[in-house]
Amino acid sequence: MSIGSWLTRVRDQRPLVHNITNLVVTNVAANTLLALGASPVMAYAHEEVADMASIAKSLALNLGTLDPEIVVAMRLASTAANRTGVPIVLDPVGAGATPYRTRAAQEIIDGHQLAILRGNASEIGILTGAGGSVVGVDAGQASEHLIDAMRAFATEHRTVVVATGPRDLVTDGQAVWELANGHPHLAAITGSGCSLTAVIGAFVGTVDTCDPHLYAEAAIAAVTCFNVAAERAAAHAAGPGSFQVALLDALYHITPEQIDEAARVRTL
Amino acid sequence: MSIGSWLTRVRDQRPLVHNITNLVVTNVAANTLLALGASPVMAYAHEEVADMASIAKSLALNLGTLDPEIVVAMRLASTAANRTGVPIVLDPVGAGATPYRTRAAQEIIDGHQLAILRGNASEIGILTGAGGSVVGVDAGQASEHLIDAMRAFATEHRTVVVATGPRDLVTDGQAVWELANGHPHLAAITGSGCSLTAVIGAFVGTVDTCDPHLYAEAAIAAVTCFNVAAERAAAHAAGPGSFQVALLDALYHITPEQIDEAARVRTL
Amino acid sequence: MSIGSWLTRVRDQRPLVHNITNLVVTNVAANTLLALGASPVMAYAHEEVADMASIAKSLALNLGTLDPEIVVAMRLASTAANRTGVPIVLDPVGAGATPYRTRAAQEIIDGHQLAILRGNASEIGILTGAGGSVVGVDAGQASEHLIDAMRAFATEHRTVVVATGPRDLVTDGQAVWELANGHPHLAAITGSGCSLTAVIGAFVGTVDTCDPHLYAEAAIAAVTCFNVAAERAAAHAAGPGSFQVALLDALYHITPEQIDEAARVRTL
Repeated sequence: MSIGSWLTRVRDQRPLVHNITNLVVTNVAANTLLALGASPVMAYAHEEVADMASIAKSLALNLGTLDPEIVVAMRLASTAANRTGVPIVLDPVGAGATPYRTRAAQEIIDGHQLAILRGNASEIGILTGAGGSVVGVDAGQASEHLIDAMRAFATEHRTVVVATGPRDLVTDGQAVWELANGHPHLAAITGSGCSLTAVIGAFVGTVDTCDPHLYAEAAIAAVTCFNVAAERAAAHAAGPGSFQVALLDALYHITPEQIDEAARVRTL
Repeated sequence: MSIGSWLTRVRDQRPLVHNITNLVVTNVAANTLLALGASPVMAYAHEEVADMASIAKSLALNLGTLDPEIVVAMRLASTAANRTGVPIVLDPVGAGATPYRTRAAQEIIDGHQLAILRGNASEIGILTGAGGSVVGVDAGQASEHLIDAMRAFATEHRTVVVATGPRDLVTDGQAVWELANGHPHLAAITGSGCSLTAVIGAFVGTVDTCDPHLYAEAAIAAVTCFNVAAERAAAHAAGPGSFQVALLDALYHITPEQIDEAARVRTL
Repeated sequence: MSIGSWLTRVRDQRPLVHNITNLVVTNVAANTLLALGASPVMAYAHEEVADMASIAKSLALNLGTLDPEIVVAMRLASTAANRTGVPIVLDPVGAGATPYRTRAAQEIIDGHQLAILRGNASEIGILTGAGGSVVGVDAGQASEHLIDAMRAFATEHRTVVVATGPRDLVTDGQAVWELANGHPHLAAITGSGCSLTAVIGAFVGTVDTCDPHLYAEAAIAAVTCFNVAAERAAAHAAGPGSFQVALLDALYHITPEQIDEAARVRTL
């Protein structure tokens, strides 16, 4: 299946993505999913997260502004998601920045079966044991150390690991892909990583079977779709404000053909 | 009074709308009210919601990301609002999606005197007893069953019921109006319904007497004003991102004459 | 040091600003800091705020949607900030609107050493004892009473006080400055004051020594930078929606020279 055809799946199925996300990006993540053609729902109450996760097609967890109540909500939702086969995407925002965040991320990883772990190179370095001093993943110089740690983690946890940055790395424990789309403006707006996590949630939400290789394909398609849209948006943007607006417009209009034509994916 | 002249009232009086709303739309609702010419305030603490509701001109409640703390805040604010004659608008986001949400909406309805209940056809169907399978209210085919249930509910609760969608229905228990303005882009951005609820709060905030017929007039004017602005915004928008920006600009600039000219309101 | 050269410092140092802010502006404040060239982090959990405040270069507190949990978070973060010499900026949103807000602001002021207190004239009037009926600070007619109260408060608390409005007042207890940049559109969008507070956080985050005079200089530079960017943004805006977008673009592109050229600062 081509990368672009994953977008067609998303638009055809309009998967309901249950987001338990942070206070900074709640609106942006919802708008990103709507622009793409998916259905967002945000729900946090302990009284309903299990119900909501069970009727969703995926569960996207984001630790950006976590607190103990949200951590409990994530545990309840994840338990329900695992029971009903709903794939979970975890975005461990700020893992390594404070002990509390690192610990919260590790508890979710230890307690539940994730479909995808997505963070920046530093967060992924911390959580996979490669160390937190890993900063930046650039063309040709992606740290072998990080890649090895990601692969080992993916194998051990039967999950897909995605480290994003100027270049993005994806592994299902066997193959490792390097993705080279995107635009520097993504680093000048808040929540671009968090929105990407929600987008990955939409793409894995179209996968029916719990299969890391399919999850990896979905993640590659999601990252590439989002990043090609960002490239197109940047062409119309005068700065980070207008870029953010143009990104939603681009996600709304982008076609599978445009994605396939612009995609820069290679196996390492 | 013409529909457009309601907007003049709002801009002249700049009513303070106390919003207890969801995490997705907090910013958008505030900006929508400001662009329109009203004054938003968001306040959630149990320690102050009664004080805030009492000095406001209306109270807009939105269940989009409710939790037990917010439910208590809504109860305290609603009690104060009812005591001081401040009209309450309830947006039961997701009623029917989880039992928790349905129950929370019903408790607010049972415990307080609402000026206006506004939701989409599915939410209104659930809460008025018409059933939740009601999806979509299209021209000429608005379910008689839903309309009957809305009218009965409005009469029983001495409130105005508004069901929005491609066509919008409003009833005060006696007359039923169908409103036909709006644009499909409203469904491609998050929070358009929630922003509309805040706008209804601004319009009913200019009504001094507790009179369902006046509340219905205010609601018709609010929905029409918002939807005509959306039509004008869509003419300048390249997609959902730029539509959202243009909608705030349009609400800021729209004139009573433009609203009256474009209004499509008929009595059923 | 020229006003514009403060912006160069911010962009060179990219100070990490720890925001404990309100639900309305979380996204906007983060984007404003990123567009400017600073690094935002939002963290609220009691378990981590002390850690986060300690590694940040400044702590920006905003009472816009406070609740008891957030008040505790602010206390923990402020204690850590004071211990490690991280400057604190307080934005007492709504002080005077409800007793709860006024009390919360006063407790922070009494319990911690602030670098900067920034609010509108009404909030600052309440907290400095000038009274809350002070509304608006216009050219040439800035209330002497307010200025005296601000100066006395600044001296007593060894802090800088900033009252913003059509004209802005800044005092370190000795000198008083009046700043005259800005644009009326700032009052038509939500969170412009809160974003300005975050921007002040970025500028004071480049000051290494606890010196009210340097803090005052940083505040003057921050307010002027933000307001000159607003003037430039307004030139490209069709209304409050596009103004908000253009403001982020303008903050991203504005140069120290443009700020120095447009700055309107005078000593009273």
